[in-house]
Amino acid sequence: MKNNSVFAVERTWPQYKSLVEDGQTPILIPVGSMEQHGHHMAMNVDVLLPNEFARRIAEQIGGLVAPPFMYGYKSHQKSGGGNFFSGTTSLDGGTLVSALKDLIKEFVRHGNRNFCLVNGHFENSWFISEGIDLALRELKWDGITGVKAVVLSYWDFVDEDTLAALYPNGFPGWEMEHAGVMETSLMLKLHPELVKLEDAIDHAPPAFPPYDVYPPHQDWTPATGTLSSPVEATAEKGELLLSVCTKRIVTALKKEFADRSAVSAAATAAQ
Amino acid sequence: MKNNSVFAVERTWPQYKSLVEDGQTPILIPVGSMEQHGHHMAMNVDVLLPNEFARRIAEQIGGLVAPPFMYGYKSHQKSGGGNFFSGTTSLDGGTLVSALKDLIKEFVRHGNRNFCLVNGHFENSWFISEGIDLALRELKWDGITGVKAVVLSYWDFVDEDTLAALYPNGFPGWEMEHAGVMETSLMLKLHPELVKLEDAIDHAPPAFPPYDVYPPHQDWTPATGTLSSPVEATAEKGELLLSVCTKRIVTALKKEFADRSAVSAAATAAQ
Amino acid sequence: MKNNSVFAVERTWPQYKSLVEDGQTPILIPVGSMEQHGHHMAMNVDVLLPNEFARRIAEQIGGLVAPPFMYGYKSHQKSGGGNFFSGTTSLDGGTLVSALKDLIKEFVRHGNRNFCLVNGHFENSWFISEGIDLALRELKWDGITGVKAVVLSYWDFVDEDTLAALYPNGFPGWEMEHAGVMETSLMLKLHPELVKLEDAIDHAPPAFPPYDVYPPHQDWTPATGTLSSPVEATAEKGELLLSVCTKRIVTALKKEFADRSAVSAAATAAQ
Amino acid sequence: MKNNSVFAVERTWPQYKSLVEDGQTPILIPVGSMEQHGHHMAMNVDVLLPNEFARRIAEQIGGLVAPPFMYGYKSHQKSGGGNFFSGTTSLDGGTLVSALKDLIKEFVRHGNRNFCLVNGHFENSWFISEGIDLALRELKWDGITGVKAVVLSYWDFVDEDTLAALYPNGFPGWEMEHAGVMETSLMLKLHPELVKLEDAIDHAPPAFPPYDVYPPHQDWTPATGTLSSPVEATAEKGELLLSVCTKRIVTALKKEFADRSAVSAAATAAQ
Amino acid sequence: MKNNSVFAVERTWPQYKSLVEDGQTPILIPVGSMEQHGHHMAMNVDVLLPNEFARRIAEQIGGLVAPPFMYGYKSHQKSGGGNFFSGTTSLDGGTLVSALKDLIKEFVRHGNRNFCLVNGHFENSWFISEGIDLALRELKWDGITGVKAVVLSYWDFVDEDTLAALYPNGFPGWEMEHAGVMETSLMLKLHPELVKLEDAIDHAPPAFPPYDVYPPHQDWTPATGTLSSPVEATAEKGELLLSVCTKRIVTALKKEFADRSAVSAAATAAQ
Amino acid sequence: MKNNSVFAVERTWPQYKSLVEDGQTPILIPVGSMEQHGHHMAMNVDVLLPNEFARRIAEQIGGLVAPPFMYGYKSHQKSGGGNFFSGTTSLDGGTLVSALKDLIKEFVRHGNRNFCLVNGHFENSWFISEGIDLALRELKWDGITGVKAVVLSYWDFVDEDTLAALYPNGFPGWEMEHAGVMETSLMLKLHPELVKLEDAIDHAPPAFPPYDVYPPHQDWTPATGTLSSPVEATAEKGELLLSVCTKRIVTALKKEFADRSAVSAAATAAQ
Repeated sequence: MKNNSVFAVERTWPQYKSLVEDGQTPILIPVGSMEQHGHHMAMNVDVLLPNEFARRIAEQIGGLVAPPFMYGYKSHQKSGGGNFFSGTTSLDGGTLVSALKDLIKEFVRHGNRNFCLVNGHFENSWFISEGIDLALRELKWDGITGVKAVVLSYWDFVDEDTLAALYPNGFPGWEMEHAGVMETSLMLKLHPELVKLEDAIDHAPPAFPPYDVYPPHQDWTPATGTLSSPVEATAEKGELLLSVCTKRIVTALKKEFADRSAVSAAATAAQ
Repeated sequence: MKNNSVFAVERTWPQYKSLVEDGQTPILIPVGSMEQHGHHMAMNVDVLLPNEFARRIAEQIGGLVAPPFMYGYKSHQKSGGGNFFSGTTSLDGGTLVSALKDLIKEFVRHGNRNFCLVNGHFENSWFISEGIDLALRELKWDGITGVKAVVLSYWDFVDEDTLAALYPNGFPGWEMEHAGVMETSLMLKLHPELVKLEDAIDHAPPAFPPYDVYPPHQDWTPATGTLSSPVEATAEKGELLLSVCTKRIVTALKKEFADRSAVSAAATAAQ
Repeated sequence: MKNNSVFAVERTWPQYKSLVEDGQTPILIPVGSMEQHGHHMAMNVDVLLPNEFARRIAEQIGGLVAPPFMYGYKSHQKSGGGNFFSGTTSLDGGTLVSALKDLIKEFVRHGNRNFCLVNGHFENSWFISEGIDLALRELKWDGITGVKAVVLSYWDFVDEDTLAALYPNGFPGWEMEHAGVMETSLMLKLHPELVKLEDAIDHAPPAFPPYDVYPPHQDWTPATGTLSSPVEATAEKGELLLSVCTKRIVTALKKEFADRSAVSAAATAAQ
Repeated sequence: MKNNSVFAVERTWPQYKSLVEDGQTPILIPVGSMEQHGHHMAMNVDVLLPNEFARRIAEQIGGLVAPPFMYGYKSHQKSGGGNFFSGTTSLDGGTLVSALKDLIKEFVRHGNRNFCLVNGHFENSWFISEGIDLALRELKWDGITGVKAVVLSYWDFVDEDTLAALYPNGFPGWEMEHAGVMETSLMLKLHPELVKLEDAIDHAPPAFPPYDVYPPHQDWTPATGTLSSPVEATAEKGELLLSVCTKRIVTALKKEFADRSAVSAAATAAQ
Repeated sequence: MKNNSVFAVERTWPQYKSLVEDGQTPILIPVGSMEQHGHHMAMNVDVLLPNEFARRIAEQIGGLVAPPFMYGYKSHQKSGGGNFFSGTTSLDGGTLVSALKDLIKEFVRHGNRNFCLVNGHFENSWFISEGIDLALRELKWDGITGVKAVVLSYWDFVDEDTLAALYPNGFPGWEMEHAGVMETSLMLKLHPELVKLEDAIDHAPPAFPPYDVYPPHQDWTPATGTLSSPVEATAEKGELLLSVCTKRIVTALKKEFADRSAVSAAATAAQ
Repeated sequence: MKNNSVFAVERTWPQYKSLVEDGQTPILIPVGSMEQHGHHMAMNVDVLLPNEFARRIAEQIGGLVAPPFMYGYKSHQKSGGGNFFSGTTSLDGGTLVSALKDLIKEFVRHGNRNFCLVNGHFENSWFISEGIDLALRELKWDGITGVKAVVLSYWDFVDEDTLAALYPNGFPGWEMEHAGVMETSLMLKLHPELVKLEDAIDHAPPAFPPYDVYPPHQDWTPATGTLSSPVEATAEKGELLLSVCTKRIVTALKKEFADRSAVSAAATAAQ
């Protein structure tokens, strides 16, 4: 038995219960997507990466990782190529919101009070916010007010030095980082068997105009589905990203979840 | 690159597209749950088992496996112990229905016409039916009528001989098979690192009355969370189950998905 | 005026109020369906039977019967023939769930705390569960926690002796009991004017495979719409069923609703 | 067997099918409520009356009566006393809308094209409209456009002469006709066992101001729950109402449903 | 800066906060529609009129006016001509209900306890009621019970003398007052630049039968879209209407909102 | 009568109909919010600004402006200060999505095919996308596929030169532009009576960490509610912004809506 697994579902329920019932153990929920990632990568990038970040973070902060969301919100043209690609498989906004709401409430029922939503798919962001807002509303109706949820996308923790190392020829912006240098480097480090870098196409980022059109002009997206060129990705860059982001996220979460014992205990008592 | 993976998300989108655009490749969607499985097993049993069945089936029928549903409908007292256990983490019925509806429609957009929902959690059954019904309704509105969905729970393919081999002292019934001999044997075969058989408690199945009560009488469920004793589980029994059920499911699906090329071609042409 | 009617709606509101405001009087809610029942019976079987069981039970436990649900969840091929028959008229799952939730909350507003959902249509089962779960959730938000709901299908109270008497040639299973010996016998006893036994077709139960298909293969269902042969139905068997099931349900409910005065009083006081 | 019943559920499905599949037989759906009706009447008035009107109309126009809605929208203070009375048991607006939408679509699936919603509860009106609008919208998506739905409340067919006969001392207005002379007279004629006229309270109609307040000022409603005095009700007035309204509704429906064969045939052909 | 504006959004938030945090300042919410108003008027009549009434009332009772609902429920044939006209732009019932529920809850979060919904579009009425009912329900779950909402349509405050002055040849009834003498007179007084009286068509009110049909018989509505003739409208009549209705509404609201300080204070304290 | 108004609701319906029925006239829908905008501005900034941009654009491209959304999605801490301020009044995500879906479908019913959503509130963005996606889905079910919707936020059209002129000391980023130099300058130009620049507080932008917390740490937001200092705002900067953004948006829309006559005509014919 994996007695020390940070993946919550790899524990028995009595083990899990003893870890979470006092509300002190942070729960990390990876939120991903099934989405095309160019000609050179598998379609589970947005799940595998936040899941691995969550695993590393959990080990350092004493947290547990919940099963990831395998599917997320619709791919947006300017951040994921658009929802018209084969392979990209998405939920309506309302469905994602409801799923998050339901699950957070369940984890709170177990005693959990400290959450971190680890997002791996840009388009999920606002629906994660709404799901948490609705969960907190209903939890308040249950008389539970001591819940705290941190929402983050791992790439927002890349610092200036790392950016410079990753993109020596200039950073295209996070929205263009769809199947680009960052994601590809992380996959090369973690799952090289899911990357075929020789099939990556080198192209300049598309010059999107400052507005969106629906239905999208499909020819605005490069035919490969990538938004910036991945050809300069390396496993070493992936290692650097893992190291830098994990470290900075751990620091942030330690600060956010410090001194929460009083709150959690009070919240539990109030049930 | 895993060029031959049956897991859809381990392919690039162009690979996936070429496999599915004519609608001939069956898509298998495992539907699981995060649910307590007694003192002796991890809580991802209902995901791992249908996922593995789906993988084996897909290899034999030329199908692809979609990412599994990691969370399912609320645990029912008489089939999963009840939704009051710590660790058990469930969706509202409407959320599960919406998620299934959304995703089936997305896979159909890619060209897929043949689906198999591989259920690993008894309580999901009726919400899977409803999700498919709503998806077919909306697809009809899209002008797409050639979709076929098979729904199955792998245990329904256990035959009499296997039952006798599994339960030499008498079969307690499928509803009691929560973390019992069947599930535990399969896990011992596939994921022994997630089983701690020495912690399994030997007990008679509970004598549930012929009605349900809400909120449940928690003392109706054995304190362990199991509904029948797992102590006679063995990896050999697991091997037998995998072999028998996979074979019989493959036979059923080959029959259901045979001669579907005309339908799929017509459906695609109509888009 | 029917001063002693057990049908709640046959009372004036002051009479009703005095009966229910202390929460001691159980409310029985029949949940039925408009569904084809073969060539030999009317389509209100699933309403008339639970309504009559509820009436008899109410008389013995001092309960009141609420107006029945005239429509239920979609007919499933393996338990009701399938939702493709003319005459079968069903609600979406979400609608049935909402209706149950709304009404239970209203009855609780009147003071009621003890409920029995008397189901007459197999397919309703999981949506009844979900409706109650959502009602209890919202009632908790109202500060009301002392509500108890028993859910039962009358056929689950048939005992072994009665089964043997009903099916001397072997019991086909409850799921096959759609317009078969049990339902037809009850209708012959209670509403012979709605049965035309001479039009009943004698046929073996269909040999359904261990999976479902959507849209259903309509030819899996016997053309009559019945799932097992009703030709051996008699009014005497109906009388036996009424007697046995009513008696056993009454025993169960008396046990469940005993000693609830303290709970109800407290719940009422908390409003 | 009731071979000539106008109640659809009292037919076998083959009988029903042969009556409705060409879309020529109008379907009448009574929409009622469980609602307090003063100290002198049962709480099913709003179901029994439209059901009986529907029965009489169906006999004259060759229609079929569907099972009634037993529960309706929330009682409004100025037309039903308010939803705070014990006994009054109501659905949320969205639930009523969904139920109507679902059922109309099911009846259309059977072939029906001509509907009459026979309303017995004033508060249902706008939610019936919305339910029909949503049903027609979705039916249009199914490619079905030849559906016609007439919505009526029977009291709107009372003519001036009848009004004068009913209310020799002046008509208080339909909104005040909650458990007043009209409803009580109809019940005295049809269900005298559900009326206790000796318990009726004679009072002037309340002088409601020209606005509503939420939560309602409960003391605006007479304590009995009636909005106008029923003491002058008689079975003879009930007979007159039945006769006049039925006749006028029949005339209206014959006009609306005349010459619909071409439409229905075309609609059926288009499926 | 408009330091004395009664329009809430014309204040800074600190000004607004100081006005509303004790719950004493009534909030008036105009609820309108975008709807055709004949050949002679603009389509924002149902917004401009309740907005102006709200402004005048607010000035006299010390209230604040919230931004109006620019869109409302679907136009009904007998009160707005029908929802088939070009220009008429409506919300589904459920959307209007949700919007009202959301916004009332937000205003309550600010401290507000006294609301007046000023309706300018007949068809909104029942959906306003439902929206308020759902808001009050959820607020109760928040522990807030001291909220009071008055709902009114300004035309219900026209008195007999004014009616006689407006319609010397007989009052056609409020439902016929769609783009008729009342609305046109008010617009002539307030927004003559949006009226082209020379294009008004003089016609008798349509003789609607006592039932509705869906889809509507479009030829039941006069081709202009007006339901009664506006040709006798004058700015003087508008002035009279403004004066009479404002005065009477002010009287009503002063009564309803008097002595609410204790309630509000208690409600605020309970948060 | 304002015969030349670009505001759709200031036209009579026959005027409007003749302008839109061929689908050539673009409809501009401003989407705003009621939101605190610091100590120095009114709370309708997010409505007034997109409404004025829409007006200017409409005049140049021959479009019509629909009534604005007065309320939008919940204020986010990093772009609007957070939804905990008094005055900020927001819709749930699902409500905003439904409202947009409903209204776009209504405008399409009138014949419109070319839409521009002019956003004035950053937080609305993803819910606008979802609303349009759902509208296009349902319109497809109606058989209407020629609809095009452009979504834009006016500030995304500010060019580098203008940025330099607006923020000589460095641009804080658009997300910090809540009640800052840009919005304040526009208001000074257009509605100086709603600005009280002397009450503006000069402060550095807050240093938000790269993650969000729910419930928000309220002390992360400057107490004023502004996210960057507005003190350097001037009417001249507002004039520059109006001129630059309008011009660039007009260019973009002319391009997007050019040569749409064939599409629109076909779409109309298909109805």
